Amino acid sequence: MSETDAAWAALHAAAERARVRRIAGLFDAEPERLSRLTVEAAGLTVDLSKQPWSLTDLGNALDLARAYDVEAARERQFAGEAVNASENRAALHMALRAPKAADFRAKGEPVSPEVDATRAKIAAFAEKVRAERRIRAVLHIGIGGSDFGPRLVWDALKPLDPHIELRFAANVDPADIAQALTGLDPASTLVVVVSKTFTTQETMTNAETARAWLREALGSAADANLVAVSAAPEVAHAFGVPADQVFGFRDWVGGRYSVWSAVGLSCAIALGPDAFEALLSGGAAMDDHFRTAPLERNAPVLLALAHVFNRNGLGRPVRAVVPYAQRLHLLPTFLQQLEMESNGKRVTADGRPVRGGTSTTVFADAGTNVQHAFFQMLHQGTDVIPVDFIAVRDASEGDAAAQRKLLANAIAQAEALMVGKPEAEVRRELEGKGMSPDEIARLAPQKTFPGDRPSSFILMDRLTPQTLGALIALYEHKTFVEGVLWEINSFDQWGVELGKTLANRILPELEGGQIGAHDPSTAALIERLRG
Amino acid sequence: MSETDAAWAALHAAAERARVRRIAGLFDAEPERLSRLTVEAAGLTVDLSKQPWSLTDLGNALDLARAYDVEAARERQFAGEAVNASENRAALHMALRAPKAADFRAKGEPVSPEVDATRAKIAAFAEKVRAERRIRAVLHIGIGGSDFGPRLVWDALKPLDPHIELRFAANVDPADIAQALTGLDPASTLVVVVSKTFTTQETMTNAETARAWLREALGSAADANLVAVSAAPEVAHAFGVPADQVFGFRDWVGGRYSVWSAVGLSCAIALGPDAFEALLSGGAAMDDHFRTAPLERNAPVLLALAHVFNRNGLGRPVRAVVPYAQRLHLLPTFLQQLEMESNGKRVTADGRPVRGGTSTTVFADAGTNVQHAFFQMLHQGTDVIPVDFIAVRDASEGDAAAQRKLLANAIAQAEALMVGKPEAEVRRELEGKGMSPDEIARLAPQKTFPGDRPSSFILMDRLTPQTLGALIALYEHKTFVEGVLWEINSFDQWGVELGKTLANRILPELEGGQIGAHDPSTAALIERLRG
Repeated sequence: MSETDAAWAALHAAAERARVRRIAGLFDAEPERLSRLTVEAAGLTVDLSKQPWSLTDLGNALDLARAYDVEAARERQFAGEAVNASENRAALHMALRAPKAADFRAKGEPVSPEVDATRAKIAAFAEKVRAERRIRAVLHIGIGGSDFGPRLVWDALKPLDPHIELRFAANVDPADIAQALTGLDPASTLVVVVSKTFTTQETMTNAETARAWLREALGSAADANLVAVSAAPEVAHAFGVPADQVFGFRDWVGGRYSVWSAVGLSCAIALGPDAFEALLSGGAAMDDHFRTAPLERNAPVLLALAHVFNRNGLGRPVRAVVPYAQRLHLLPTFLQQLEMESNGKRVTADGRPVRGGTSTTVFADAGTNVQHAFFQMLHQGTDVIPVDFIAVRDASEGDAAAQRKLLANAIAQAEALMVGKPEAEVRRELEGKGMSPDEIARLAPQKTFPGDRPSSFILMDRLTPQTLGALIALYEHKTFVEGVLWEINSFDQWGVELGKTLANRILPELEGGQIGAHDPSTAALIERLRG
Repeated sequence: MSETDAAWAALHAAAERARVRRIAGLFDAEPERLSRLTVEAAGLTVDLSKQPWSLTDLGNALDLARAYDVEAARERQFAGEAVNASENRAALHMALRAPKAADFRAKGEPVSPEVDATRAKIAAFAEKVRAERRIRAVLHIGIGGSDFGPRLVWDALKPLDPHIELRFAANVDPADIAQALTGLDPASTLVVVVSKTFTTQETMTNAETARAWLREALGSAADANLVAVSAAPEVAHAFGVPADQVFGFRDWVGGRYSVWSAVGLSCAIALGPDAFEALLSGGAAMDDHFRTAPLERNAPVLLALAHVFNRNGLGRPVRAVVPYAQRLHLLPTFLQQLEMESNGKRVTADGRPVRGGTSTTVFADAGTNVQHAFFQMLHQGTDVIPVDFIAVRDASEGDAAAQRKLLANAIAQAEALMVGKPEAEVRRELEGKGMSPDEIARLAPQKTFPGDRPSSFILMDRLTPQTLGALIALYEHKTFVEGVLWEINSFDQWGVELGKTLANRILPELEGGQIGAHDPSTAALIERLRG
């Protein structure tokens, strides 16, 4: 048996032990449980003590990380090796947020000087736009990795009444750009088009609409309001963007890891360059933690192991991420791309079938709202769905008393999921109300909570650019560690290609062309939707 | 063996047959497949032919519906019997949207006259507010069932540049109401507070903030800008709402089924009462279809059976709902409450353990955006996640060419999920590029799409109040049918109680009181978050 086979076998054995045990009971048996399973990292506290593992199981999970030599894999990534093997690229987004004058190299080529230059260019441009006070709105056009990150950052950090408003258009649905343009004044709107290739169908469709809108109002002066972020600067320039308003990024930055690059330019403009730099510094602080903390105190490693324990050990294919912070309500959407696009794969980096389940389905939205949506199912459904709770101690604005209600709910939900409410207790309550035995037999099971449902708890004192940067980087590295354990290339996305190919075949058919070979359902849909 | 046992056994046997067969192959074997599995209902077309069942399996699924006598259960619901047994209530939201002068009765009591009177009052009040032109914004304060529905309706139907703006505040996080109030003028803002009991913690916290905001600006005139929707009118009046601005609803309307009631008042004001009535008429058209179409042509029944075939037959615990319409991007959030709160339960209505899995996890967001998020995993992940695609033929605004791109993507994704791309085809492509055998061995599996991943396709010509109403009612009845098959009471939500109880215990502890008995993790969180 190989070392990794043995480590997986031990993890599965540990999970079987966990099945016949309750989480809540572990606190008595393990006096060091809370301290061993709580780690501090870059301004975040991560409490994994409400996960189903014992400290012995944790040892097995750490052995799994050692069997895969997660530390060596991490060093290969930071060293700029081509960890994205199928595309022969490095995955070096950490270089984007490193302290100035670092020495990152992508496949041997120094990249830090160019990173520093781009950061200086971003800061200077953002400062200039803000100082001139001509621009009152930025329309950010991008999709996927060129959209989710900036949208999350803006929503998390925007002032209540910003001097410069930031809007987004992503979807090729014409309603999206129509809504985004409504109420904007072309003369005071900067259109930032973000596409690595400058050929992304949705983005270019929306960019053309926005450019036409600018040109209709401003004529030849319109193009001064166009900005591009792209790895294909000449294409952007040909589109009409002034050459000095094209910002670059490189092929070692994956879309879903690109918020740290010039893709974040819109945020740098609307939030100010200092906030953007602070976001980067928070990411860098988490990088530093990830590279230096021992495995057993390493927040991304432990979070990955807790998730793998649930996913692979206990066969739980879904995870809820519930930020108790309205400003973080887009985090689950961001993580859907980060985790499910990175690790939603069924073959290893060298082409073998993976051993078991890979990425969980990640979903949810802000608490307390979701308590009124699907928490019924978290507490009393047939499936166990682990939860990542995220909470911020201090309110960013508004009433401290309301903030305490918010936090009381977050803590209470995690407690309730773990401790549950036994049927015997429910029966006593119903008997106390004088209910008949028949009624009690029917109702008590419905008011019982099985409990023993796991959660992680991530908290911070304040939601700042730094802590947000640390939070995003925490999940990035967590996703990377999972990819190592699943033997996946977390940095490609071949699964998006087939749909694009077929859409390109179907588009001319919808435009009235002859309908080619399809199954009868697809053919009927084309016929019906071309009207 | 009981009839239901036998029907379940036959369904499981059918699913086992489906496992060793490909969906795409069924179209050749079954010439009637597309027509038998496509139904029209209240302006919607539902195509279930890309689901894994054969027409024989469909027969087994229909037998399951017959074994549970879904038609009789439906009639009990429409007759106003106490189908919500644990609370001894009817579930009669269909009465809210029935044609005028209908004769619905809740547990024998006629309700239609009161419904008609409330609808007339809603229309008159909405018309008055719109005609006076004093009010420019409505702030809707509610949470859960008092929030998701109106938010979905507004987002789907709002004009690009509305005369009356509608905003929402739900979360007890003070950032939510702070953001909602920013930029509003108290004199021209109507605050609509929606809470069945008028005691919901989040809603009353936000209502107090909004009332203070009104009173600070307007003094004694403030309360004229307060409106309430509640089943506790005297409590609302005591809060300060003028008696003639309190709108009622009854205990036979569940929160997650309440958008049709006065809970939709804000939409009636901001969209106009005609649009609200049209929404109701769309729901009523689906009710009519659900009550009159035979099981084998009944859209809610067939959709429920397709979902149950995947959930219980094939053991698939997650479903993605992907509207290819930016205006419907909140539908998945709405359905999370509708489905997961209704059917996320582990005991039957009479207190026995359920047979198998109940509600799936429902998630997603608008296409094409999500193609750039988690579609990688849908195509190439280890788990099979069925998809409900929803598409609208005509754009509500903007460029028809962009709309065709949107639709081409929707159709292509459903096709790609089903047909996949075999490894042999990928190998031929890579060989054609002159790639080495070693490289091909590594890369071909990564570029292969297994296919055979099921989806439903729901389409409509235009997104109107009517078709939106029909769509919501389709999913309501689908959820009801599933509840019948799972023997669940779909209309209670006992699983939300424990968290509320514990939050009430923890709140004074966060406010500085003595910390009571908790597990060490919970105690540490309280200590840490009370600052």
